[in-house]
Amino acid sequence: MEKTCTDELPLAMNSSEKRETVCIFGTGDFGRSLGFKMLQCGYSVVFGSRNPQMSSLLPNGAEAFSYPEAAKQSDIIIMAIHREHYDFLTELIEVLNGKILVDVSNNLKINQYPESNSEYLAQLVPGAHVVKAFNTISAWALQSGALDASRQVFVCGNDRKAKQRVMDMVRTLGLTPLDQGSLTAAKEIENYPLQLFPMWRFPFYLSAALCVFLFFYCVIREVIYPYVYEKKDSTFRMAISIPNRIFPITALTLLALVYLPGVIAAILQLYRGTKYRRFPDWLDHWMLCRKQLGLVALGFAFLHVIYTLVIPIRYYVRWRLRNLTSTQTLLKKEDPFSTSSAWLSDSYVALGILGFFLFVLLGITSLPSVSNAVNWREFRFVQSKLGYLTLILCTAHTLVYGGKRFLSPSILRWYLPSAYILALIIPCTVLVLKFILIMPCIDKTLTRIRQGWERNSNYSKSPLNGKTDI
Amino acid sequence: MEKTCTDELPLAMNSSEKRETVCIFGTGDFGRSLGFKMLQCGYSVVFGSRNPQMSSLLPNGAEAFSYPEAAKQSDIIIMAIHREHYDFLTELIEVLNGKILVDVSNNLKINQYPESNSEYLAQLVPGAHVVKAFNTISAWALQSGALDASRQVFVCGNDRKAKQRVMDMVRTLGLTPLDQGSLTAAKEIENYPLQLFPMWRFPFYLSAALCVFLFFYCVIREVIYPYVYEKKDSTFRMAISIPNRIFPITALTLLALVYLPGVIAAILQLYRGTKYRRFPDWLDHWMLCRKQLGLVALGFAFLHVIYTLVIPIRYYVRWRLRNLTSTQTLLKKEDPFSTSSAWLSDSYVALGILGFFLFVLLGITSLPSVSNAVNWREFRFVQSKLGYLTLILCTAHTLVYGGKRFLSPSILRWYLPSAYILALIIPCTVLVLKFILIMPCIDKTLTRIRQGWERNSNYSKSPLNGKTDI
Amino acid sequence: MEKTCTDELPLAMNSSEKRETVCIFGTGDFGRSLGFKMLQCGYSVVFGSRNPQMSSLLPNGAEAFSYPEAAKQSDIIIMAIHREHYDFLTELIEVLNGKILVDVSNNLKINQYPESNSEYLAQLVPGAHVVKAFNTISAWALQSGALDASRQVFVCGNDRKAKQRVMDMVRTLGLTPLDQGSLTAAKEIENYPLQLFPMWRFPFYLSAALCVFLFFYCVIREVIYPYVYEKKDSTFRMAISIPNRIFPITALTLLALVYLPGVIAAILQLYRGTKYRRFPDWLDHWMLCRKQLGLVALGFAFLHVIYTLVIPIRYYVRWRLRNLTSTQTLLKKEDPFSTSSAWLSDSYVALGILGFFLFVLLGITSLPSVSNAVNWREFRFVQSKLGYLTLILCTAHTLVYGGKRFLSPSILRWYLPSAYILALIIPCTVLVLKFILIMPCIDKTLTRIRQGWERNSNYSKSPLNGKTDI
Repeated sequence: MEKTCTDELPLAMNSSEKRETVCIFGTGDFGRSLGFKMLQCGYSVVFGSRNPQMSSLLPNGAEAFSYPEAAKQSDIIIMAIHREHYDFLTELIEVLNGKILVDVSNNLKINQYPESNSEYLAQLVPGAHVVKAFNTISAWALQSGALDASRQVFVCGNDRKAKQRVMDMVRTLGLTPLDQGSLTAAKEIENYPLQLFPMWRFPFYLSAALCVFLFFYCVIREVIYPYVYEKKDSTFRMAISIPNRIFPITALTLLALVYLPGVIAAILQLYRGTKYRRFPDWLDHWMLCRKQLGLVALGFAFLHVIYTLVIPIRYYVRWRLRNLTSTQTLLKKEDPFSTSSAWLSDSYVALGILGFFLFVLLGITSLPSVSNAVNWREFRFVQSKLGYLTLILCTAHTLVYGGKRFLSPSILRWYLPSAYILALIIPCTVLVLKFILIMPCIDKTLTRIRQGWERNSNYSKSPLNGKTDI
Repeated sequence: MEKTCTDELPLAMNSSEKRETVCIFGTGDFGRSLGFKMLQCGYSVVFGSRNPQMSSLLPNGAEAFSYPEAAKQSDIIIMAIHREHYDFLTELIEVLNGKILVDVSNNLKINQYPESNSEYLAQLVPGAHVVKAFNTISAWALQSGALDASRQVFVCGNDRKAKQRVMDMVRTLGLTPLDQGSLTAAKEIENYPLQLFPMWRFPFYLSAALCVFLFFYCVIREVIYPYVYEKKDSTFRMAISIPNRIFPITALTLLALVYLPGVIAAILQLYRGTKYRRFPDWLDHWMLCRKQLGLVALGFAFLHVIYTLVIPIRYYVRWRLRNLTSTQTLLKKEDPFSTSSAWLSDSYVALGILGFFLFVLLGITSLPSVSNAVNWREFRFVQSKLGYLTLILCTAHTLVYGGKRFLSPSILRWYLPSAYILALIIPCTVLVLKFILIMPCIDKTLTRIRQGWERNSNYSKSPLNGKTDI
Repeated sequence: MEKTCTDELPLAMNSSEKRETVCIFGTGDFGRSLGFKMLQCGYSVVFGSRNPQMSSLLPNGAEAFSYPEAAKQSDIIIMAIHREHYDFLTELIEVLNGKILVDVSNNLKINQYPESNSEYLAQLVPGAHVVKAFNTISAWALQSGALDASRQVFVCGNDRKAKQRVMDMVRTLGLTPLDQGSLTAAKEIENYPLQLFPMWRFPFYLSAALCVFLFFYCVIREVIYPYVYEKKDSTFRMAISIPNRIFPITALTLLALVYLPGVIAAILQLYRGTKYRRFPDWLDHWMLCRKQLGLVALGFAFLHVIYTLVIPIRYYVRWRLRNLTSTQTLLKKEDPFSTSSAWLSDSYVALGILGFFLFVLLGITSLPSVSNAVNWREFRFVQSKLGYLTLILCTAHTLVYGGKRFLSPSILRWYLPSAYILALIIPCTVLVLKFILIMPCIDKTLTRIRQGWERNSNYSKSPLNGKTDI
């Protein structure tokens, strides 16, 4: 819906003012798309090319020249050329002296070369100001205007003025420049478009491993066991019944794992008596992917909800219900109503629904545009208070689901307990630890540590310390 | 996912250009985090501290000096110090003369002091240009780069140039500055991070009150009444059956309350014959929290949907179905199929589903990033046309649900009608009033009033008035 | 939640610096709201009016003058006047010479006048620098601060400096300026707020047509046919049963239509042997509204899910289940359990759930704020890989739903096959074509074409071509 420049070229520029000229080296897809966009936004564009006369596909209004001729016409030169072909630039060192070279290149693999393309370019043409930019933008998106993916242009460079000019250009094109610092950042920026959900990898593999383990666990208990002892073919359970055990267990475990690192961190701080020591790397990484863990858990919870709602329309369930009723009628046996069963059944369903509702709220709050609209205190309130409430409700849902069966030994098959009991281990651990941590005496110490107090520090004995500064 | 500066420090700055130096007073968490971020983004950072030699936790590359020494090295001084310790600044008045003081402080309570921290600072150091900024950003978020909550930095100050320099700095750090005007705005900015969902408070309390009232109403009708007259224990209904009455009633009432203030405003304008008089404060406030009212209503509608879908897997429902079928079979009584019952049952369900679907659409459109992508006419179309359609569908859903039972006196228990009848009062009122307002004669007058026409004004008799200007 | 200026007027400006003055022509709603906002943000505001002494509703702190007097006080003049009343400006040509005229006007219809209001204004006052801006912002939103709809201000103009000054002003007001190029863009900008979901029109009409066709198709097969042959009144099926056939068929067809244009484009490129020829217009348009097609499909899928989950609480279903059980019991006929039926029933449900889950994921990823947070490779991965997986799962869901009945002739009624068979035509076509396209030999050619290789081009024979440039 959003367009930043008109689609028609502003050919009828009756502006008195002379337009800024930008030079683009390379007439590939990206170079042409960028040139097209720049012409739309009021720039004058010249292309530098090996075969200027062959460049027939250039956007209307742009002209192609040989590299040195094109370079002379502008202060800013956009390098839309693959790194492997940078060599010819060595011949242009004099022409390029003092110019701003915008490196838009990407590689095919992460860390393909020892140094980033931009740093390599800066070595080749030491007199020029190299600025990295535009590498995360796609040619197709530029030309079609359908910038569904990111509008963010990561910019870095050693010369502040050069960087500033490039950032202004980015803004004029309707994109959002983000200053990433000096040219050493180029390596990271070049790796960025090659990454595929780096923060999601750990939650994804973890949940996949959990699912596979639980699948075999449930198949053993619910398919192989009845087959061995009763010669009953229950393989059809693998389509819905068993997934509907796997999903809630994975969801609850992942949700608990969202809150476990916070608890571990608190215990570490209490043990060390200071907050001024770095956490181990695994804990840091774990804390940074808590949001992703929670969202994967929400996905599994969502699947669990639909798998559960679908129960009454399954053939097996209808068949069993018909047979049960039929048998009951034929035996003329009254089935007395059990209020306690009704209570148990209704409460575990109600707890589950409320837990899922809060879980969905948490998920919505983690949408970037929603979390941007709340202040820090509100975000903390939702993610911490509401998060723990969700964990408590979902754990209670599982506990009440177990209900009377909980410790009945008849439930063991080949010494394996019901799968839902596995789901309770981590959540109950987290809740018990958290309960201990919020007890007044411990909470008080923890709060002091978090305000900067240190147990074994002379420095901390100064009465003002940790309170003066923000 | 978004990073604005490299995580590695750009130690190998081979930039010819001298970097800008920023001074930070105070070596607390926030001061250090901000310093760390600034170093990453290419600034030179010096800290001012009471004990410069004790400050061992400073980020790599920053140095600590005494306050006056640090202040001398930079034009911009960030005051990462609690308000209570501002006093020492009086000794530095001369050093600070003409400098930009960036006040990042927050208080513990809303309106804790008579004047804002920034105005207090401006009084203490009259020669400096005080700019309020960064107080809504968290230290943890700055350091970890995980800016999940707001990236917005509210900036205010009396000196435009000072403000501009601070805003440029904010942008360099990858954050979004929002100019809030002069330093009188500081009070509001300081209160901002202390607020906890101020716009949600009214909808929340209103719906809580409604829920409690309806809960007792339903308990009396559905638990106490059968217990008194039939000695039947129906307490288990409190887990699902009764909530599933409370939630839809609350949802429908809140949804109607979203549209009621617009209707009242129209009536007020018709009565007054002008749009140029302010609405009463309660109406203004009500109109501003319509979005929140609607979203709370959507939450209740969502709960109602899941509570309803869950019905067939409840123990009580299965038990009753079994017994019903059993009895029917034993009595060999044919249960004839009633087309009208099928129509009634299917239509109220279908109306409910369609109403909920539109309601979800409304909810999605109110997400900040979605409403940002539509133009004003589209937003109005969705929120007004689609909103009324949702209200009509949901009211019809409730009416058809009542169906034949609607006016049957047998439904009264202790003179209390069915709960769903309460749900219809406000929606039907709103729809009837709206229907009257859109009748051509009234609508025409209202449109004229909204275009600026006034019934009792000489001024309005000028033929051009209200039409010339936008 | 977001406020960009204080609500109180900064009357106590103790700033030493002189504030910038802005002149607003016209004291209508929009003019006054804009003036109010500007005063809040620290500007000095003067109004130009026909009757300066009548303008009693101006915001506090602003003064009204006659047009020429007001114009003299500022470089920037905001034209909050309808186009029809621009004529009087001809008398002010001298006063307006060299000034920046900000045209905020909108029309009532798309393409109401041959030239845009801004170009018309530029012709009337040739000496002034006309800049188009603010026309997409609503007066109400400006005044209330509740900018729920777009914060984007589209700016265009021929004079770069004038445009820059207006864009700075837009930023100061807390809005986001988007440079749209020269004044020729004004026509498009003026049409923008008059559009009503232009990209949604094609998906909407297409799905409406599909729904109507399928409705009559199903009514013939499921209501008229049984009535003619069995005198059975099945009209009640029109409330839920028939919609629950229409919705999934429409959803699956639309989802397949999202991927069809990509397949057609690939075939065209293969056939032409080059990617450097434009696609036909209908294909271009189709490709640009794929996102909308997909979201409409998701809406229908959502409806299908709820319509399905609601099945067991319908009167008709409960009645049939009771009668079935009753009959079975009375006949003392055992209903043997069929594992293959259980497998079929459970797998089509499971496939449907997983397909819907991925579909919801696709929908979430297309939210603007989410797609902004992923890089291009991730976006492509989700929209292409996950999209095809969704299509495969949903097609498999429909195929397994058909199951044994698939080719049974008894299912034909008046030679019409079951409706679900219609749903399979387009998805199966798309999947078969895609399967052919990803076969190694064809995929290799296609990849070469997409990297710039041309089958019938001398130019392409140069070994380096298409590889040098990005």
